[in-house]
Amino acid sequence: MLLAKKVPVFYLIRKVRYDLMYVIIVAIIVHGLTRQLYPYLPEMPLGIPTFLGTAISVLLSFKMAQSYDRWWEARKIWGAIVNDSRSLVIQLQTFLLKENTEKTIRTMAYRQIAWCYCLGQSLRELDPLANMKTYLSPEDYEKIAKHNNKPLAIMQLNAEEMKKFRKANEIDGFTHMQINSTLSRLIDSMGMAERINNTIFPVTYKMFLHFSIYIFVIILSIALRNVDIYYEIPLLVALSLVFFLLEKTATHLQDPFMNRPSDISVTSIARTIEINIKQLIGEKDIPPPIAPEKFYIM
Amino acid sequence: MLLAKKVPVFYLIRKVRYDLMYVIIVAIIVHGLTRQLYPYLPEMPLGIPTFLGTAISVLLSFKMAQSYDRWWEARKIWGAIVNDSRSLVIQLQTFLLKENTEKTIRTMAYRQIAWCYCLGQSLRELDPLANMKTYLSPEDYEKIAKHNNKPLAIMQLNAEEMKKFRKANEIDGFTHMQINSTLSRLIDSMGMAERINNTIFPVTYKMFLHFSIYIFVIILSIALRNVDIYYEIPLLVALSLVFFLLEKTATHLQDPFMNRPSDISVTSIARTIEINIKQLIGEKDIPPPIAPEKFYIM
Amino acid sequence: MLLAKKVPVFYLIRKVRYDLMYVIIVAIIVHGLTRQLYPYLPEMPLGIPTFLGTAISVLLSFKMAQSYDRWWEARKIWGAIVNDSRSLVIQLQTFLLKENTEKTIRTMAYRQIAWCYCLGQSLRELDPLANMKTYLSPEDYEKIAKHNNKPLAIMQLNAEEMKKFRKANEIDGFTHMQINSTLSRLIDSMGMAERINNTIFPVTYKMFLHFSIYIFVIILSIALRNVDIYYEIPLLVALSLVFFLLEKTATHLQDPFMNRPSDISVTSIARTIEINIKQLIGEKDIPPPIAPEKFYIM
Amino acid sequence: MLLAKKVPVFYLIRKVRYDLMYVIIVAIIVHGLTRQLYPYLPEMPLGIPTFLGTAISVLLSFKMAQSYDRWWEARKIWGAIVNDSRSLVIQLQTFLLKENTEKTIRTMAYRQIAWCYCLGQSLRELDPLANMKTYLSPEDYEKIAKHNNKPLAIMQLNAEEMKKFRKANEIDGFTHMQINSTLSRLIDSMGMAERINNTIFPVTYKMFLHFSIYIFVIILSIALRNVDIYYEIPLLVALSLVFFLLEKTATHLQDPFMNRPSDISVTSIARTIEINIKQLIGEKDIPPPIAPEKFYIM
Amino acid sequence: MLLAKKVPVFYLIRKVRYDLMYVIIVAIIVHGLTRQLYPYLPEMPLGIPTFLGTAISVLLSFKMAQSYDRWWEARKIWGAIVNDSRSLVIQLQTFLLKENTEKTIRTMAYRQIAWCYCLGQSLRELDPLANMKTYLSPEDYEKIAKHNNKPLAIMQLNAEEMKKFRKANEIDGFTHMQINSTLSRLIDSMGMAERINNTIFPVTYKMFLHFSIYIFVIILSIALRNVDIYYEIPLLVALSLVFFLLEKTATHLQDPFMNRPSDISVTSIARTIEINIKQLIGEKDIPPPIAPEKFYIM
Repeated sequence: MLLAKKVPVFYLIRKVRYDLMYVIIVAIIVHGLTRQLYPYLPEMPLGIPTFLGTAISVLLSFKMAQSYDRWWEARKIWGAIVNDSRSLVIQLQTFLLKENTEKTIRTMAYRQIAWCYCLGQSLRELDPLANMKTYLSPEDYEKIAKHNNKPLAIMQLNAEEMKKFRKANEIDGFTHMQINSTLSRLIDSMGMAERINNTIFPVTYKMFLHFSIYIFVIILSIALRNVDIYYEIPLLVALSLVFFLLEKTATHLQDPFMNRPSDISVTSIARTIEINIKQLIGEKDIPPPIAPEKFYIM
Repeated sequence: MLLAKKVPVFYLIRKVRYDLMYVIIVAIIVHGLTRQLYPYLPEMPLGIPTFLGTAISVLLSFKMAQSYDRWWEARKIWGAIVNDSRSLVIQLQTFLLKENTEKTIRTMAYRQIAWCYCLGQSLRELDPLANMKTYLSPEDYEKIAKHNNKPLAIMQLNAEEMKKFRKANEIDGFTHMQINSTLSRLIDSMGMAERINNTIFPVTYKMFLHFSIYIFVIILSIALRNVDIYYEIPLLVALSLVFFLLEKTATHLQDPFMNRPSDISVTSIARTIEINIKQLIGEKDIPPPIAPEKFYIM
Repeated sequence: MLLAKKVPVFYLIRKVRYDLMYVIIVAIIVHGLTRQLYPYLPEMPLGIPTFLGTAISVLLSFKMAQSYDRWWEARKIWGAIVNDSRSLVIQLQTFLLKENTEKTIRTMAYRQIAWCYCLGQSLRELDPLANMKTYLSPEDYEKIAKHNNKPLAIMQLNAEEMKKFRKANEIDGFTHMQINSTLSRLIDSMGMAERINNTIFPVTYKMFLHFSIYIFVIILSIALRNVDIYYEIPLLVALSLVFFLLEKTATHLQDPFMNRPSDISVTSIARTIEINIKQLIGEKDIPPPIAPEKFYIM
Repeated sequence: MLLAKKVPVFYLIRKVRYDLMYVIIVAIIVHGLTRQLYPYLPEMPLGIPTFLGTAISVLLSFKMAQSYDRWWEARKIWGAIVNDSRSLVIQLQTFLLKENTEKTIRTMAYRQIAWCYCLGQSLRELDPLANMKTYLSPEDYEKIAKHNNKPLAIMQLNAEEMKKFRKANEIDGFTHMQINSTLSRLIDSMGMAERINNTIFPVTYKMFLHFSIYIFVIILSIALRNVDIYYEIPLLVALSLVFFLLEKTATHLQDPFMNRPSDISVTSIARTIEINIKQLIGEKDIPPPIAPEKFYIM
Repeated sequence: MLLAKKVPVFYLIRKVRYDLMYVIIVAIIVHGLTRQLYPYLPEMPLGIPTFLGTAISVLLSFKMAQSYDRWWEARKIWGAIVNDSRSLVIQLQTFLLKENTEKTIRTMAYRQIAWCYCLGQSLRELDPLANMKTYLSPEDYEKIAKHNNKPLAIMQLNAEEMKKFRKANEIDGFTHMQINSTLSRLIDSMGMAERINNTIFPVTYKMFLHFSIYIFVIILSIALRNVDIYYEIPLLVALSLVFFLLEKTATHLQDPFMNRPSDISVTSIARTIEINIKQLIGEKDIPPPIAPEKFYIM
C-alpha cells in the first residue's frame, strides 16, 4: 500500500516512461509530416480531438471505477480474514468447555497465523513456506509441504483437529458446526482472493482504451500543427500524461497481489492478525507491527 | 478468458470487420452525395457530431459497466463454486465420524468434480455428458442421462446419498442440514449461472446504441465534407473503430458462456477444482492444469 | 423478454411515435416563428444546445443505469425463485425420512409450481387463478380463492402441511426449521417482486428529463434556423430519436411485470420450474418449454 | 410517493420558486452591469459556461444516483419489513404446536401491525402513539408510552411473550431461536430506517453544487450579454430550471421520511401489512387499502 | 457530522485556502510571462482547457462517488453496531431463562455501552480508556488496560461471561451459539471500521487528479491571456474553487474517523446506544443525547 504524502515523483514517472517517450516520438513525426504536407492537408478542427479526449476520460473513469472495485473487494476480503481469524480464536476459547484446552487452542491459533502469512505469500507467488516453521510443528510442516495449495492444507489440519475433539466428545455437534462455519468462511475468503488474482481484467477493454489514447495524441498533434513544436510537445505530454497515469493507476489497482508497492499490504495485515491473536491467547512475546518501507508498506 | 499480451490484432479486427466496411461505404456515399448537392447544402456545424459522439461515449461507458458487472458476477458465481466444492469435501471429511467412510466420500467427491465439468459444458451448450464416465459410476451415468437438466440430476444423487447416511443413523440431523446447505448453495450457483446465460441483455438498448453510432458516422461525414476523402475515411474509421470495438467488447462480456475465447474459463476452473479435491482426498494421480490455447484459455 | 435479432422496427417506432410527432411540430413552429422574427432575433450559439444535449445524455445514462438495476434485480428475484423451488423439492426428498412420503411431496411440489404461475399472473394483474385447478386440489383451490393475496395463501398451505408432519413427529424441529426457511425465502422473493411492481420510479425525475429533451429540441431548432427546413427536421428527429428511444427503453425496464413484450418472461420461467420439479419427482408427463411469440417470450 | 401522471405543475414550480427568482435577479443585475461596463469588458467565450454546465450535469447525475440509492435502500427496508411481518405470523402459526395458541398469535400479530404504524409515525416525527390503542391492549399501551423509542418497546413486548412460551416449555429452544431471529431482522430494519433518517447527506457536497449552479448562471449571463434581455432571461431560466429541479428531486429522494408528498408511502405500506396479516390469522373485518391523495399517497 | 444550514463560509474556505493562493500565484505568473512572450506565443484554443475541465469533472465525480461509498459504508457499519447492540440486550433478556440474571445482564449491557465509546475513541486515535471507569468494573478496567486492542478485549470479557453461563448450565448450547453470533457480528463491524480507517485511499489517484487541476489552471490561464487580469483571476478562482472544494469534500468523506467536524458522529451514536440500552434494562438515570457543536456533531 502506498503511503500518503511520501510517494516520490520518480516512482510515478517511471511507471509511464515508455508511453511518454512514444508520445514525444509521435508528436515529432506528426509535426514533421504535417510540415512537409502542409499545402495538401485540410484543417483538422480542434473539436475532434477534444471530443475524443472527453470520451476517453469518460471511459477511463469507468475503468478506474471497476479497478477500484476490484481493489476494494480484495481489501474487504482481507478485512474479513482479520475478522474471522479473531472470531475463530474467541470461539475456540468460549466453546471448548473442558479443562486443559489451552494447548490445542494455541496450536490452532498458530496454524491460523501461519495460514494468513502463507496465503499472502502464495497470492504474491512468493515462497508459501517462508517462515512456516516458526508457526507450525514439524509434522504439520511435512504434511502441507506435499500439497499444491498450501493454505488449503493448513485449513484441512484445523478441520481435522475439530473432528478429533468431536470424536472424543469434547464438543457437541453444535459447536462443531459453529467453528466449522468459521473455517468455511476463511476458505471462502481464500477462494475469493484467488479469484481476483487469477482473473485477467478484460484484455480487449484495456487494449482499446490504450489504443484510443494514441489516436487522441495523433489527432491532437495534427490539429495543433500550426503551433510551434516547443509549445506543442509539453502540451501533448501534459494532456496524455493525465491519461497514462490514471490508466496505470487503474492497472495497478486491478491486480492487488503482485508484490508491488501498490499491493494490498497483506504481510502487514497478517502481522496485525498475529499480534491480535497472540494477545487473545495471552502470549507474552508480541512482535511489533511491520515497519513501512520508504513510501509503501507490504 | 483472453490472456494478457497475446491477443492477435487479427482476432480483434475480425470482430468488427462488417461494421468497418459499412462505415467506409457510408463515408463514400455521403461524400459522393454531398459533392453532388454541394451548392444546395447548408453547413453542418462540427458541434453536432462531436456532441453526439460525447453522448455515445457516455452511453457506451454505462453499457460497458453493466456488461462488466454481468461478467464479473458470472466469475464470482464460479468462484463460489470453487469454494463450495472444496468446503463440501472438507465438511464430509470432518462430519462423517464413523470409520470406513473414505469410499463414500470419494464417490461424492468425484460426483462433485463431474458436476463442475457437466455444468460448464451445459452452459456452453456442448455435450453435458462428455467425459462423465470418468467420474461417475455406470449406474449414476444411466440415471443422469435421462434427465433434461444433467447437473441438477447429479446434485440429486449426492442429496440421496446423504439421506441414506441419515437413515442409517451415521450422521445426525445437524450434520445432514449442514451438508445439505452446502448442496443448496451449489444449486443456487448453478441457477445463477443459468440466469445469466438465459437472460438476453435488453435488446432495444443495444440496437439504439448501435443505431446512434451510425447516425454519428453519417453526421460526422456530412460535417467533414470539405475534407479530402483520403483524410476523411481514416479519421471516420479510427473514431468509429473505438466505438465499435468497445461495443463488441461489451457484447462479449455480457454473455460469458458462449464457447468463445472471451468466455469465463469454466473448463480450466473445473480442472482446478478437480486438482484441489483430489489432493484433499489423498489421490495420487493428479491431472495437470488446463494448458492455454494460443491467446486464450477455456 | 425481447428476443435478440428479431425485434421489428415497427414495434420500436410505435413506442415513440407521439414524441416524434411533437418534435416535428415544434420544429415547424420554431422555424416559422424565427423566419417571421428573423431581423429582431439575436443569434443562438450552437454551444448551448450541444452542452444541453451532453447534459441530457449524462442524465439519461444514469436513469438507464437505475432502470437497468431495477430490471436486473427483478430478474435476480425470479432466479432466486427458480433456485429455491428446486431446493425445496430436493430438501423434501432428502429430509422426509419415513416411507410413503411421495404423495405428500407430490402435492407440495405441485403447490410450488402453482405458486410460481400464480405469482407471475398476479404481478401482471392478470387472473391469478388461471390454470390453478390443474395444480391444486379442489379444497386447496377453495381456500386460496377467498384470499386477497393468492400466492401468500398457497405458501400458507405448504407451511401448514409441514406443521402437520411436525405434529405427527414425522420430522424433527430441525428439519422443520430448514424447510421453513426455504419457504421464508420464497415469501421474501414474492415481497421483493411486489415491491418493484408497486413502487413508482420517482415521477419528477422522469418528468424533468422529458422536459429537458423538449427544451433541447426547441433551443437546437432556434440555433439551426439558418438551415433549410428539409435538412433541419431529419436532423432534429434523428437526434431526439436517440434520446426518446433510450428514455422509452429505460421506462420499460423499470416496470418489468406489466404484461408487455419487454417484461421479464415470468410465464416461461414458471414453466422451466415446472419441468425441473416434475423431473425431480419422477413424473412422466413433462410439458415442453413455452414457445416464443414472434419477437418476444412471455 | 408521488403518483405517475397526476403531479400538478404548480407543485413542481413551488419547489424551486426562490431559486428561479434569484436567477432572474442575477440575470438583470449582470445585464445592467455589463451594459454599463461594456467598453471595458473583454469577451467571455461561451466555451466556459458550457463546460461548467457539462461539469455540473455530471456532478448532479452522481448526486442523483446517490440520492436515488438512499431512497431505494429506504424502500427496500420497508419491503423487508413487509416480508418479515408476514413471515413472523406464518412462523408463529407453524411453530406453535400446542392447542389454543390462536389468542396469543392474534395479540402478537396485532402488536406487529402496531409496530409498523408506530415506526412510520416516529420516522416522520409525528405522534408515534396515534391509533396505538386500536392495536394494543391498555397494559401494553402503558408500557410503551414510557419509552423514548416506542417501536423498540413494542418489539421488546413480543420478545418477552416468546420468553414466556419458552419458560412454559410450549416451544423448544430451536423454535425460540427461529422466531427470535425474525424479530432481530425487524429490529435491524428499524435501525436501518433510523440511520437513513438521522444521517444528513454530506452538507458541503450539496452546498458546493448549489454554488456551482449560481456561478454557471453568472458566467453564462456574462457570456450572453450581447443577447437582448427578453431572450436571455427565458434561456437562463430554462437552463437553470433543469438543474434546480433535478437538484430538488435529489434532495427529496435523500430524505424519504419527512412527511412530504415525495416520501416513501409508509402509512400505505403499514396498511398493506395490516391487510395481509389479518387475512393470515383469519380476521373478518379487513380494512381497505389507503386511498391516494390528489397526486400522492402517504 | 456537519449539520445542514449552519456550516460557516469561513470553515469551507479555510479548507482550500492554500490551493486558492497557489491558483492566484499561478495566474499572475502565467499572465506576466505571456505578456512578456506575447509576440512569440501561438494562440491556445479555449477548447483544450474546457475539454480538460470536463475530463476533470468526470474523474472528480467518480472519485466523489467512491469517497461517498466509503463514508456511507462507515455509516452503515455504525448503524449495524446500533442494531446489534440493541439486539444483544434483547437476546440476553429473552434467552436467559433462570431467575436473578438482571445483574449479569446489566454488567454485560454496560460493557456493550463501554465498547461503543471505546471503539469510537480508538478509531479517532483518542484515549480509548476515557470514561471507561463509568461503565466497567475496576477488574474489567485492569484487564483491558493491558491489551493493545481495547475494544477486542472488552468483547472477550463478554464472550467469557457467556462461557461461564454455559459451564454452569444456565444456558444451552443453542442459546450460547445465538448470542455468540451476535458478538461475532459486533467484532466484524469493528474490523470493518478498522479496515476503512487503516486503508489509505489510492494515493496516486488522488495525486494525479490534483495535478490535473493545476494543469487545467495553467492551460486555462494561457488561453485567457487576452483577458484583463482583473477579470481573469476571479474567473480562474471561481472555476478552480468548484474543483478544489469538491476534491476536499471527497477527501474528508474518505476518512470518516479523523476527529474532524465532517466525521461520522460516533460519540453521538454511542450515546444513542447508551440511551436505548439503559431504557431496555429499565435504568432510571438516562443521559440526554449529545448536544451539537456550533455547526457539527461529534
